Amino acid sequence: MNNVIPKPSVPAPDIVRCAYLELVVTDLAKSRAFYVDLLGLHVTEEDENTIYLRSFEEFIHHNLVLRKGPVAAAAAFAYRVKSPAEVDAAEAYYKELGCRVERRKEGFTKGVGDSVRVEDPLGFPYEFFYEVEHVERLTQRYDLYSAGELVRLDHFNQVTPDVPRGRKYLEDLGFRVSEDIKDSDGVTYAAWMHRKQTVHDTALTGGNGPRLHHIAFSTHEKHNIIQICDKMGALRISDRIERGPGRHGVSNAFYLYILDPDGHRVEIYTQDYYTGDPDNPTVTWDVHDNQRRDWWGNPVVPSWYTEASLVLDLDGNPQPVIERTDASEMAVTVGADGFSYTRKDDDGAPGSGVEGFKLGAQV
Amino acid sequence: MNNVIPKPSVPAPDIVRCAYLELVVTDLAKSRAFYVDLLGLHVTEEDENTIYLRSFEEFIHHNLVLRKGPVAAAAAFAYRVKSPAEVDAAEAYYKELGCRVERRKEGFTKGVGDSVRVEDPLGFPYEFFYEVEHVERLTQRYDLYSAGELVRLDHFNQVTPDVPRGRKYLEDLGFRVSEDIKDSDGVTYAAWMHRKQTVHDTALTGGNGPRLHHIAFSTHEKHNIIQICDKMGALRISDRIERGPGRHGVSNAFYLYILDPDGHRVEIYTQDYYTGDPDNPTVTWDVHDNQRRDWWGNPVVPSWYTEASLVLDLDGNPQPVIERTDASEMAVTVGADGFSYTRKDDDGAPGSGVEGFKLGAQV
Amino acid sequence: MNNVIPKPSVPAPDIVRCAYLELVVTDLAKSRAFYVDLLGLHVTEEDENTIYLRSFEEFIHHNLVLRKGPVAAAAAFAYRVKSPAEVDAAEAYYKELGCRVERRKEGFTKGVGDSVRVEDPLGFPYEFFYEVEHVERLTQRYDLYSAGELVRLDHFNQVTPDVPRGRKYLEDLGFRVSEDIKDSDGVTYAAWMHRKQTVHDTALTGGNGPRLHHIAFSTHEKHNIIQICDKMGALRISDRIERGPGRHGVSNAFYLYILDPDGHRVEIYTQDYYTGDPDNPTVTWDVHDNQRRDWWGNPVVPSWYTEASLVLDLDGNPQPVIERTDASEMAVTVGADGFSYTRKDDDGAPGSGVEGFKLGAQV
Amino acid sequence: MNNVIPKPSVPAPDIVRCAYLELVVTDLAKSRAFYVDLLGLHVTEEDENTIYLRSFEEFIHHNLVLRKGPVAAAAAFAYRVKSPAEVDAAEAYYKELGCRVERRKEGFTKGVGDSVRVEDPLGFPYEFFYEVEHVERLTQRYDLYSAGELVRLDHFNQVTPDVPRGRKYLEDLGFRVSEDIKDSDGVTYAAWMHRKQTVHDTALTGGNGPRLHHIAFSTHEKHNIIQICDKMGALRISDRIERGPGRHGVSNAFYLYILDPDGHRVEIYTQDYYTGDPDNPTVTWDVHDNQRRDWWGNPVVPSWYTEASLVLDLDGNPQPVIERTDASEMAVTVGADGFSYTRKDDDGAPGSGVEGFKLGAQV
Repeated sequence: MNNVIPKPSVPAPDIVRCAYLELVVTDLAKSRAFYVDLLGLHVTEEDENTIYLRSFEEFIHHNLVLRKGPVAAAAAFAYRVKSPAEVDAAEAYYKELGCRVERRKEGFTKGVGDSVRVEDPLGFPYEFFYEVEHVERLTQRYDLYSAGELVRLDHFNQVTPDVPRGRKYLEDLGFRVSEDIKDSDGVTYAAWMHRKQTVHDTALTGGNGPRLHHIAFSTHEKHNIIQICDKMGALRISDRIERGPGRHGVSNAFYLYILDPDGHRVEIYTQDYYTGDPDNPTVTWDVHDNQRRDWWGNPVVPSWYTEASLVLDLDGNPQPVIERTDASEMAVTVGADGFSYTRKDDDGAPGSGVEGFKLGAQV
Repeated sequence: MNNVIPKPSVPAPDIVRCAYLELVVTDLAKSRAFYVDLLGLHVTEEDENTIYLRSFEEFIHHNLVLRKGPVAAAAAFAYRVKSPAEVDAAEAYYKELGCRVERRKEGFTKGVGDSVRVEDPLGFPYEFFYEVEHVERLTQRYDLYSAGELVRLDHFNQVTPDVPRGRKYLEDLGFRVSEDIKDSDGVTYAAWMHRKQTVHDTALTGGNGPRLHHIAFSTHEKHNIIQICDKMGALRISDRIERGPGRHGVSNAFYLYILDPDGHRVEIYTQDYYTGDPDNPTVTWDVHDNQRRDWWGNPVVPSWYTEASLVLDLDGNPQPVIERTDASEMAVTVGADGFSYTRKDDDGAPGSGVEGFKLGAQV
Repeated sequence: MNNVIPKPSVPAPDIVRCAYLELVVTDLAKSRAFYVDLLGLHVTEEDENTIYLRSFEEFIHHNLVLRKGPVAAAAAFAYRVKSPAEVDAAEAYYKELGCRVERRKEGFTKGVGDSVRVEDPLGFPYEFFYEVEHVERLTQRYDLYSAGELVRLDHFNQVTPDVPRGRKYLEDLGFRVSEDIKDSDGVTYAAWMHRKQTVHDTALTGGNGPRLHHIAFSTHEKHNIIQICDKMGALRISDRIERGPGRHGVSNAFYLYILDPDGHRVEIYTQDYYTGDPDNPTVTWDVHDNQRRDWWGNPVVPSWYTEASLVLDLDGNPQPVIERTDASEMAVTVGADGFSYTRKDDDGAPGSGVEGFKLGAQV
Repeated sequence: MNNVIPKPSVPAPDIVRCAYLELVVTDLAKSRAFYVDLLGLHVTEEDENTIYLRSFEEFIHHNLVLRKGPVAAAAAFAYRVKSPAEVDAAEAYYKELGCRVERRKEGFTKGVGDSVRVEDPLGFPYEFFYEVEHVERLTQRYDLYSAGELVRLDHFNQVTPDVPRGRKYLEDLGFRVSEDIKDSDGVTYAAWMHRKQTVHDTALTGGNGPRLHHIAFSTHEKHNIIQICDKMGALRISDRIERGPGRHGVSNAFYLYILDPDGHRVEIYTQDYYTGDPDNPTVTWDVHDNQRRDWWGNPVVPSWYTEASLVLDLDGNPQPVIERTDASEMAVTVGADGFSYTRKDDDGAPGSGVEGFKLGAQV
């Protein structure tokens, strides 16, 4: 599977943005408590098996579908395309790639019309659609605005073993790379890729995959994210705060990672930057730069590197997970074999910042 | 020295608030870069050996004196008292306690008048003064307001081996306890004590002492603290961020701990609560409650427990450090011997929150 | 009535802080919608005639009592004193002043014990109590924290015709003046007076009185106040936003004035400064300084000067309103007779800031 | 001139975003004090006649050029296009429109290459360029981050007599309308139009034109805007705050309008919403809705409607100003002839919100 993915001769579909994720959860009531009661996502529609949720400023039917199922997993990463014709383009594109493709004129989920779902070359279930039900955009419904309000879907993050291979495939599909993490040997550890004018619509994180690393929602301001932490403390579920809050080096966003009842990871994210110019500069980070993942040098917890959600094929079965063979970011940065610096040109003297990260690192 | 400190027969001086700290630093230029260029404290006066600094909303001459010296240490914890007569009261009080006492009508530092300094029963250099030079209060000088502006001195934090002994002494001196950390065996690990109407003017942290744990300045809002982190990242000194930012369980404040060039610890702190009622409820935390020190359950780094600054006697020599013999908070909460919970009544089943803190704890 | 109020020979009661206001409202359901649904105050207790409300960080039974009655008015301005004995002191103090005094061991409202109510020399119904029921302090109940959360009762504001007369009376009662507004002829237009360590527990606004100008609650941060405006917009009650948001010159607080269904004025307030030192500098503002009431020079609407709530005597009848005979702040600053400046020393040339306030002043 | 502007047969240039404004100022030192010292824009380059400024997250040479000249005016509204070929497209497009067109391979300002400037059909000096010098993007230079930091150029706003005529022209040019203000007679008072994925790159405000209404920069958070107000208060130039801060109805952004030393208007703006989907819903506001321009119902000052900056032709002479003949928004909403409502369906009873805006409206 590690061969290069060829670029189809037909044009790639014109993708607008990441639009929604379909997530299989094992206990719908627990998931509802997490996404609705804790995070305050707005219910567009729900029945006993499925909940359709959207963020505060969304006008399409949903950004997240929670579907009850036997195995926690991601069932679809759905992108909106620019016109109905682009759904045809997507179908043709993936057919030429030799992928399994399924077209449904009535859509795969409520509120969405003509769509195509594919098992993409990296093993992910991608969906492309244009037709969608418009619903009330809550932008000025400040009577419904919670202290930790999630205002937009920002991005997906996918785990894949071979990042350069996946990156080439997504660049062919029309994504542009805003940032990446590499080392001096040329290994790529992660890449951030966008269609809309933010840092990413999706990112590739090097690791055993295909798996869903996380889905990210954005808030207006930083204090909204702090409130989510505070609320999780009040609810005595601080052990579901996995990492953060912090400031990313990559993307510059203020962030938080939390875990839903099935262990699906959710990022809360705010204030990255505009990337809409054609020559938007790509930022490359050294994997040994201790500020790349957290600008304040706070450690990345190991689970953040190792844990992720299964993804489903079009029959609803989990895709097999293939091991990454390139160097692991965790291995090269954390613990005895790792080596990170705060200031690149320090000489290694005590306090120089070469020898590691923080005073007082956790035992 | 572990005998109970008797309550003097004369009245305790009427203390208003913690007012300034005198800190010996080994490289004045480096310290200036930290406190003035990085943190934006305002220089009231300076010469080649000393810098007098104040926070944005202060109207007395200084909240921090940096004095060049051979050994990094805290030279004085200064409290303002309610009237000139209370300086006399302080002198009499400590004389009856049998402490070494020095009175200087012209003050020990510029800008401060008639003062008394003592080597207190816990070994700390305490100062009491009323007379002080008023300087421009910068409260509405928003032309000087930086993005991470420090607006007030909030508190001191002192390390002492025997917290109940120190607490009794400070209660006799007129401080009231707002919060403390204990275990079910009756060991006290820390106590927070106030005169002004906030959670503390000083706190006692159990450990080898007498030592200065930290000095704390407050900001108006949480984003001001985040900016200080961001700026330290930009200056590539993120390795001087020791712990945080986070939300304290104790005090409820949003916090950050950073280290100055000599390793003196500075807390940046905002939004604790009003404690001015006579029956303000005292909050007691269980040492095993994993949200006590960080409401979000983020780990306390070991250095935060073990490192602290020496304090000086009235001759300017470091006080000998006496070891704590009570249980250590770090030992009972971090690592193999520790035991903490997120939810007290969980049954210990996987995911119950009893067995430890976070998924993904740092290796 | 304009004679000087004598200072009693007995000591003034030792007041801790403003504690609660009792407000008569004409439609309890509408008032509940305003204070509970819109502002998010927390219901301690309620029945068909009365609602007891508290702010987020309060631990006493209530900060606001809404009582159904025929005439909208303020029934009591209640202060907490330092001990039960201070209630006796208050009773004696007002008896010597010749005021009508009523003592109730069981209290005047639920949750409060032994209290004294008086018709004070300015005509206001003042209450003093110590005994009070402690209730859950919600400080860390972030699961209940709304985006516009009111965290503390901050102050009262009273309209009285003769400010210097009222100020002398309140200073005798132990209040200290933090700020005032005067003109060069010696007229005092307003004064801010505190017991707790903020800018005020109550203020005197010159005007026809006795009347209640407003009650003020504080938020943690400025965005919380903006959210209240945004929510009032969403509820299409923006016409109940009377003035602001803005930055006060006096007090330096960020503020907003809104009107409840009966026209009672509520201020939302954050980030004034510490006033606890005995020599806290008093700030005097020139009535012609256009930044005194709004640091950004935004105009004060006339209703803010003219409208206020009646206050009741101890029988529940409205106190007669006596006209102010000193110059009116509105008359000397707004419109044809007014004269204000942005920069005091400007020469009156066009654009110099002498001739008025803003370009684009409202017609 | 009120005939319809025909759509050219050649394709419109593919515009990326508004990129910079060239502004003629009469006193460069005073303008520098305003834009650099007060607002903190970053100087890319300067000489005795010109200053090139950029916002914090910009990577192209400048967003604002201040050029010393005899008459305060806007000399160019510059848009970046998607590729060098699109400059050719722009040239052809405006030639077919019969406009005066000037092409300069070396650019009209430093840092910008091959450009075309035109006198567009509405009388505005528009520029289109692709080639530009990349400069340091300061995104993570938090050591340079001020409390009121301007992070992006957001939009232009142009005054033109006939909004529908201008809107048709800009739609032909590829702009899409996000929001507009109309009345029930079909008069259009203003329209907001975008290329990048925000509410606008430019807007048309109905009035005497062609004139520049304002240029807008965005901040990260709302408190950054409040700080700019606070700083203007501290500098005693609050009379240069023309309107706000407030929350817009249109765009939902938090805003502030201030005036530079020449009277050029600058908006500070934050937190509008994503508009990148092809079917992004257009929001139409009723001109009589009192929350359309300020969500909190605060009045628009008359100067905001009447004052604006001249624009120059390609010879540097001011364009003649043509009067608007359609109804004026100010006339239909402010004062005796105006009529606005807070709640559309109210019956006009006192307090119903029909009869006007606010209690306490300014005299």
